Amino acid sequence: MSFEFEIIKTQGRARAGILHTPHGDIPTPVFAPVGTQATVKAVPPRDLHEIKASLVLANTYHLNLRPGSDLVREMGGLHQFMQWPGPMLTDSGGFQVFSLAEINKIDDEGVTFRSHLDGSKHRLTPERSMEIQQNLGADIIMAFDQCPTPTDREVVERAVERTSRWAVRCRETHPSNEKQALFGIIQGGIFEDLRAKSAAFLNTLDFPGYAIGGLAVGETKAEMYTALGFTEPLLPANKPRYLMGVGEPDDLANSVMLGVDIFDCVIPTRLARHGAAFTPMGRVNMRNKVHTNDPAPVDPDCDCYCCKNFTRAYIRHLVRAEEILGAYLLSIHNIRFLIRHMEAMRKAIINGDLKAYTDGFLERYRNTIGVR
Amino acid sequence: MSFEFEIIKTQGRARAGILHTPHGDIPTPVFAPVGTQATVKAVPPRDLHEIKASLVLANTYHLNLRPGSDLVREMGGLHQFMQWPGPMLTDSGGFQVFSLAEINKIDDEGVTFRSHLDGSKHRLTPERSMEIQQNLGADIIMAFDQCPTPTDREVVERAVERTSRWAVRCRETHPSNEKQALFGIIQGGIFEDLRAKSAAFLNTLDFPGYAIGGLAVGETKAEMYTALGFTEPLLPANKPRYLMGVGEPDDLANSVMLGVDIFDCVIPTRLARHGAAFTPMGRVNMRNKVHTNDPAPVDPDCDCYCCKNFTRAYIRHLVRAEEILGAYLLSIHNIRFLIRHMEAMRKAIINGDLKAYTDGFLERYRNTIGVR
Repeated sequence: MSFEFEIIKTQGRARAGILHTPHGDIPTPVFAPVGTQATVKAVPPRDLHEIKASLVLANTYHLNLRPGSDLVREMGGLHQFMQWPGPMLTDSGGFQVFSLAEINKIDDEGVTFRSHLDGSKHRLTPERSMEIQQNLGADIIMAFDQCPTPTDREVVERAVERTSRWAVRCRETHPSNEKQALFGIIQGGIFEDLRAKSAAFLNTLDFPGYAIGGLAVGETKAEMYTALGFTEPLLPANKPRYLMGVGEPDDLANSVMLGVDIFDCVIPTRLARHGAAFTPMGRVNMRNKVHTNDPAPVDPDCDCYCCKNFTRAYIRHLVRAEEILGAYLLSIHNIRFLIRHMEAMRKAIINGDLKAYTDGFLERYRNTIGVR
Repeated sequence: MSFEFEIIKTQGRARAGILHTPHGDIPTPVFAPVGTQATVKAVPPRDLHEIKASLVLANTYHLNLRPGSDLVREMGGLHQFMQWPGPMLTDSGGFQVFSLAEINKIDDEGVTFRSHLDGSKHRLTPERSMEIQQNLGADIIMAFDQCPTPTDREVVERAVERTSRWAVRCRETHPSNEKQALFGIIQGGIFEDLRAKSAAFLNTLDFPGYAIGGLAVGETKAEMYTALGFTEPLLPANKPRYLMGVGEPDDLANSVMLGVDIFDCVIPTRLARHGAAFTPMGRVNMRNKVHTNDPAPVDPDCDCYCCKNFTRAYIRHLVRAEEILGAYLLSIHNIRFLIRHMEAMRKAIINGDLKAYTDGFLERYRNTIGVR
């Protein structure tokens, strides 16, 4: 059955499971690379398959502006358009409207804004977000929400109320069906009572999955973990939980331990384009002189095309020479690093030794770089 | 035996052959994609293998400046550094010194110039070019020549004489051996007597291959074909002939018919990064509105990853959105287009119907676009 969520094993709050979708099974916990404009930047879909990506995200805001969701539908939907045959998720467009666009008007009906591309005027409402996401055709779609600064109580309170009203309209416009599952988004910032209020209401709508929204947008890491800690028990245990926009290796470890099943973030590909690589010791800037004649791979433990074939010396050269191949190789590696991290945590949950893994990971990851 | 050149079949002046090198056999006529900075821009080496590239070029000028030829040697040579296990060719650096750098001093001894990257001062001589190319370790290396504007007789005459003296010094510094073959470069611009003079002298040095230099650098196509026409009979029939910097599909067809065996050019990858694709009908700008919802591949006859999987509509979207994946897919396609073109000509020579192929190709390629 589509969208059935099987929990195979739990350890503490952490869960290892399988989320079934019309385009394949997603082993959880899972990290989803982001294909903002219908491409994971610099990574061909066959390479995503090779590095065992099982869920790819795309952005409603961007695709609505360019090339337009009607065109994507005409071309057979996102899976067909970008030739990614596996599970996909689209966000609602809300986050980008609030962070990228110039907002003209926001009220209970929806948001009117100007495109960051050409200044053209657009409008997003819960109903329109559902229509666009239906056109795009991802397996998992998200309710249109308002994502505020998580530490301003008055603003967060209003956002919780509006998000609840919008969630009802999303659900009425697009009840989950066999092709697309609509996930709800809990708001409430760093305030426990507001999270409880948001969750209590959204739980009554019985979404097939829940996102914890409005985190990783300005609060401290400690605040984020605290908010996750008190939000997790508010969510139905048998539904997948999605922490939006989180992808730092240490955040993944800590959040899996707090019961999160699904993550997405642009960080692996963005860092790659800036010449930085994830390693078990922390982030490494491949531009550094120390790599000049280093014959070692970026990460000797990694099984990706980059690490199996190329030296740090060569990657440094590519990064310094601003060669596209550098962005390609580091993007593949950085995504694979996070996916291997998730695979290791899933295996550890099943084997009952998650804490040993995350303790070891966090100790190595933090100690060497010192900034995390 | 390394560098043996077998001619399998000829038709008119055209030849189908095999050039043996320490890193594999090169079926000729051949088009070599250019890996200026130790990477064919946007194309991973495994993809070069997939599209049946059999020879890859790299640039001495660029690699000497960054990362430096000593480093490449320390890292095991170019093949190892960039993980291209097949045949490679490096140019002498001469062409780039004269076209990219700010020249401080040029005399019979060599050239002193400032780097286009950081203004640092460098010196290139025939001996230094040989040393750098030995460090890089390509299978085929080129004599250091002076490449002048091909239509200025007085300048060309002096360049022919200097190129001859430099060829002697290159040969003395680096006699071809089992690992590296040193090719000579014929100069003489568009002047038949100067080409004859240059060829006559260089033939006495008995290089294992000859490049026809100083063409495709400002003269008309008619002048280039005329110069090729009278230069070809001046070259030893049993040695490979290399036309440097030429890669337009129509030029490849016309030049193969004039007896050229080896070509290289940045045009397929440069066009790709600007959103243009080679097709049997001519160059196509993938940005054009006409492709908006076109479900056809870039080239339905092509067997590359781009054409086997993606629509023109998607490629147009990637190009407009300035996504790296667009440059990757079009680079693969454009190189594969030229390689398929060469494969078809080689097969046609062997079958004795080259003229039918090139007539058909040139008619289709010209008629639709109208600018060639």
